[in-house]
Amino acid sequence: MTYCVGLRIDKGLVFMSDTRTNAGVDNVSVFRKMFSWSRRGERVMTLMTAGNLATTQAVVSLLDERSKAPVDRNPSILEAPSMFQVAREIGETLREVINSNAMSGQTADSAFNATLILGGQIKGSEPRLFMIYPEGNFVEANGDTPFFQIGETKYGRPILVRAYDPAMSFEETVKLLLVSFDSTIKANLSVGLPIDVQTYETDSFEIGRQQRIGADDAYYQSISTGWGEALSQALRVLPDFTFADG
Amino acid sequence: MTYCVGLRIDKGLVFMSDTRTNAGVDNVSVFRKMFSWSRRGERVMTLMTAGNLATTQAVVSLLDERSKAPVDRNPSILEAPSMFQVAREIGETLREVINSNAMSGQTADSAFNATLILGGQIKGSEPRLFMIYPEGNFVEANGDTPFFQIGETKYGRPILVRAYDPAMSFEETVKLLLVSFDSTIKANLSVGLPIDVQTYETDSFEIGRQQRIGADDAYYQSISTGWGEALSQALRVLPDFTFADG
Repeated sequence: MTYCVGLRIDKGLVFMSDTRTNAGVDNVSVFRKMFSWSRRGERVMTLMTAGNLATTQAVVSLLDERSKAPVDRNPSILEAPSMFQVAREIGETLREVINSNAMSGQTADSAFNATLILGGQIKGSEPRLFMIYPEGNFVEANGDTPFFQIGETKYGRPILVRAYDPAMSFEETVKLLLVSFDSTIKANLSVGLPIDVQTYETDSFEIGRQQRIGADDAYYQSISTGWGEALSQALRVLPDFTFADG
Repeated sequence: MTYCVGLRIDKGLVFMSDTRTNAGVDNVSVFRKMFSWSRRGERVMTLMTAGNLATTQAVVSLLDERSKAPVDRNPSILEAPSMFQVAREIGETLREVINSNAMSGQTADSAFNATLILGGQIKGSEPRLFMIYPEGNFVEANGDTPFFQIGETKYGRPILVRAYDPAMSFEETVKLLLVSFDSTIKANLSVGLPIDVQTYETDSFEIGRQQRIGADDAYYQSISTGWGEALSQALRVLPDFTFADG
C-alpha cells in the first residue's frame, strides 16, 4: 500500500508521500514515490505514485525518456504547453504500461494498476492539481475538492476534511498532513516512514522546500505522541452527552 | 455498508450502530442493526450486524426461534450456560444461513456474507465482547483490543485508537463514539443516521440506556459542527513545523 496527498492552498501546492512498498507483509522495501521535473523560471511538475511498483517505475522512466541515451533525452512533458497536456501524456503513458503487461497474458493479483497525483505550474496559467487513473483519464482539483489522496486514503481523511483551510501557510499544511499520515501509519502497516514532503509556491517556477522525515525526526515524534493528547483534549472541549431518559 | 462499534469499558459495555442499508446508492433503507435478548437478573446479550441484510435478518429470526409458533419459542441462547457458548451458537447459525444460500447455487456480489458483534454478560462471569465472522468462528476482545468495529471501519478508527480510555463514563464513551460515527457518516454515504446506542452496566443483568439519535438531534448536531473546530484547535496546540533548511 501507499499513502500520498497532494493539496492546493492559496500559497501554492504541497505534496506528501510515504515510501513503503510491500508485496506481502514479509517483503517490505523503501522506494521514493515522489518525482519532479522542472525548468527554472518556466515550469515545475511533481508526480506521486500509488500502485504496482513496476508500473509506476516504468511510467517515470518513460517520462524521463530513459529508453534513450542520456544525451538524447528531452522529456516531452518539459515541452508540453499546458498542465492539462502534461496530465494527458502521463495518463497515456500509464495506460500503455498497464496494457503492455495485461495484454501479454500475464495476470497478477494487483492487476498492474497504479494511480497518480500530478501537480505543478507552467508559466501563463495557475498551479493545477490532477489525479490520474489507471485508465489514463484524470480529474482536476477545484475549490470544493482542493486535495487528492491515493493509496490508503480512509484513516487520514477525516482530519483533512475537517481542518483544511486554503489560507494555511506551508508550515501549517505540513503539520496537518503529518497528522493525517500519522493516523494512517498507526493503522496500516503497509504505509511507513520515511515521509517525503515538497512544496511549490505559486509563480515561483522552481521547486520549493523538499524534506525527508524519518522515524527519528523529533518533530514527527512530537506530532505522533502529542496528537493523542490533543485529540483527547478536543473531545473534552465538546459538550457532554446526557441520556434522554436521565 | 454499515458502521457498528462494540466497546468494553471498566463500567460495562457500550454498543452503537447506524441504521442505513443500501443496495446501490439509489436503494437506501433504514433497518435496525442492534438486537437484544435478556432475562432480567440473569443475562443480557446484544448483537450488532453488518453485511447482507437477508442473512442478518435470517440469523436474528432463527435466534428468536421465529420458525416456531410464538408460544413454543424458547431461544436456546437464553439457555446457554456461557457467553462463549452463545457466540458459538450464533456463529453456527450465521454459517448455516450463509451456506444455505451459497449451496443453492445462487450467487450475489456480496456473497451473502455478514459479520457480527456480540456482547453481554451471564451471571457468574464477566461481561464479554465477541466479533463473529461469516465462517462462524469468532474472537474475543481483551485489554489490548477493547473494542470491535464492523462495516466501514477505517474513517472512525483513529479517534477510537487515540482517545479510548477504559475509565471513561458511559456518557464520555457515547460522546467518543458519536465523533467516530460522525467522521464515518461524513465520509461514506452508505453509513447514515439515525444511530442506535445501548449501554450495559456490569453486573446489572438488565439492558441499560437505549436511545435512537436522529439527524435532528441537537446534541448530535453540536458534536458534528463542533468537532471540526475542536480538531482545528487541537492542531493549533501542536508545535509548529519548520523546514529543516530554514
